Amino acid sequence: MSAVDIREVGPRDGLQIEEPIGTDAKLEFIDALVATGVKRIEVTSFVSPRAVPSLADAEAVAAELKRWPDVEFSALVAGMGGVKRALASGVTRLEYVVSASDGHSQANVGRSSEESIALIAPIAELVHEAGGHLEVIVAIAFDCPFDGPTPPQRVAEIAARALESGADALAVADTIGTATPIRVTDVLQRVLAVAPGVDVGLHLHDTRGQGLANAWAAYSLGIRQFDSSVGGLGGCPFAPGASGNIATEELVYMFEDGGVDTGIDIHRALDAARLISRHLGKTLPSGLLAAGGPPVPGPRP
Amino acid sequence: MSAVDIREVGPRDGLQIEEPIGTDAKLEFIDALVATGVKRIEVTSFVSPRAVPSLADAEAVAAELKRWPDVEFSALVAGMGGVKRALASGVTRLEYVVSASDGHSQANVGRSSEESIALIAPIAELVHEAGGHLEVIVAIAFDCPFDGPTPPQRVAEIAARALESGADALAVADTIGTATPIRVTDVLQRVLAVAPGVDVGLHLHDTRGQGLANAWAAYSLGIRQFDSSVGGLGGCPFAPGASGNIATEELVYMFEDGGVDTGIDIHRALDAARLISRHLGKTLPSGLLAAGGPPVPGPRP
Repeated sequence: MSAVDIREVGPRDGLQIEEPIGTDAKLEFIDALVATGVKRIEVTSFVSPRAVPSLADAEAVAAELKRWPDVEFSALVAGMGGVKRALASGVTRLEYVVSASDGHSQANVGRSSEESIALIAPIAELVHEAGGHLEVIVAIAFDCPFDGPTPPQRVAEIAARALESGADALAVADTIGTATPIRVTDVLQRVLAVAPGVDVGLHLHDTRGQGLANAWAAYSLGIRQFDSSVGGLGGCPFAPGASGNIATEELVYMFEDGGVDTGIDIHRALDAARLISRHLGKTLPSGLLAAGGPPVPGPRP
Repeated sequence: MSAVDIREVGPRDGLQIEEPIGTDAKLEFIDALVATGVKRIEVTSFVSPRAVPSLADAEAVAAELKRWPDVEFSALVAGMGGVKRALASGVTRLEYVVSASDGHSQANVGRSSEESIALIAPIAELVHEAGGHLEVIVAIAFDCPFDGPTPPQRVAEIAARALESGADALAVADTIGTATPIRVTDVLQRVLAVAPGVDVGLHLHDTRGQGLANAWAAYSLGIRQFDSSVGGLGGCPFAPGASGNIATEELVYMFEDGGVDTGIDIHRALDAARLISRHLGKTLPSGLLAAGGPPVPGPRP
């Protein structure tokens, strides 16, 4: 077990807004990610293929996951239909998203935040009947593009109700990349207070350059689970040039350079970033990737 | 006095590797920076015009600084010749750079690290005779591109000797953008231990995405003085696409979004970034700039 436990989300959050690259290219990408040593990969989402065409091959991807038996694959779902599709495909580690704001929840899934919370219990029941594991991701945990700042206590309230409703783990998501360290600390302290002994992860975007600072603030608070994608894949279509998820290789460098083990080979993470950059035909936002990697002489000159 | 005291270094560190933009454009840039509310600006360096053509107009810029009487302007110097030029131009707040490694020191100024340290005392004497203020910047405080990792104790040793030699203030510089939060904490703790009651600033580059995380780690340790440049100006010519200094607007957002006053108007900082981006004819690396600014609804919708 590494000191810090990173979940690679490139194949899902990274690719979801990109043009479809084809299932074979995606499997090649997953193979490159497995080679980094990462032990958890969010591999797809079971959502509407019309809404997210680039993940329309969720079943085809799921059918191939037995190639990599040592990795824990998970998928994102937005409702009961997706849960059923995922379980039928053999994917039993699921992440169900609940937006903390009504504006985003309606825009994203056509339900209020409360209606999404009400679905946690039946989803948890279905997942547990299949022997699975359910993480609830509280999205829009800091700001909503429609409703403005999210009250921090609302995030803790959703976290508490998710656990009462059967969630096995939690994540807090800065969905639009507006969080900063002081607010990250505030929100996470409130969530940790209602979730003793529960795994709490953090999902960050680097849209405004705050991603790693937020990760460091969370680490200082005791958070050990982070989502990231190689290359910082996942830029927002409505903010040209803006970064996507925090970059796996930058997160790995931040920890490993200080002697904190992540279990991930930074050079293989850079290789995976270059591979998906070629498949997408675009430059990715990671600064470490642009700089060519960690300093030389360094850990692997 | 703001809770965090930012020094804008765009006109010096930001522009030094760029093509010269002309003195008038530079003065327009300085005017835009003053309008942000920043109280300290590193405005030029008095070094060889052959080595740094874009700052060859140091005297011409210095002659105009009386336009902005409320701002504290400083300049960087690399030796006695530069000190004399600066003082003759009426710039009396000076920063003298000492590289912690011999490899970088020789490449940068043709002297060993020890030879550079030996110059602190005569430089301090000259500066103080003119009623000035001398900050010593310990460069290459983390890694050297020639000599590898810098021993943290070497940075503290140079800091201590700078103070013995008459320096009024100190800064620690991650010159090539390789530092990470755990090492930043280690080096700063050692420097603070030998510099009780002395102003200690931090100069960061965002080359590998670590800039704001390092700033946050330093803030958590009690550091309140930071260098930055609007737009993240100052990319390295040897690392295409790599970021330069940490971006002023991202640093301001990190603090102000959490209620920590910087005295800087983020929207005017973004305006200054756009201005210098137009003068240089290039896109700057700041993520906040690319994203269009802080979230809306936000502090100034």
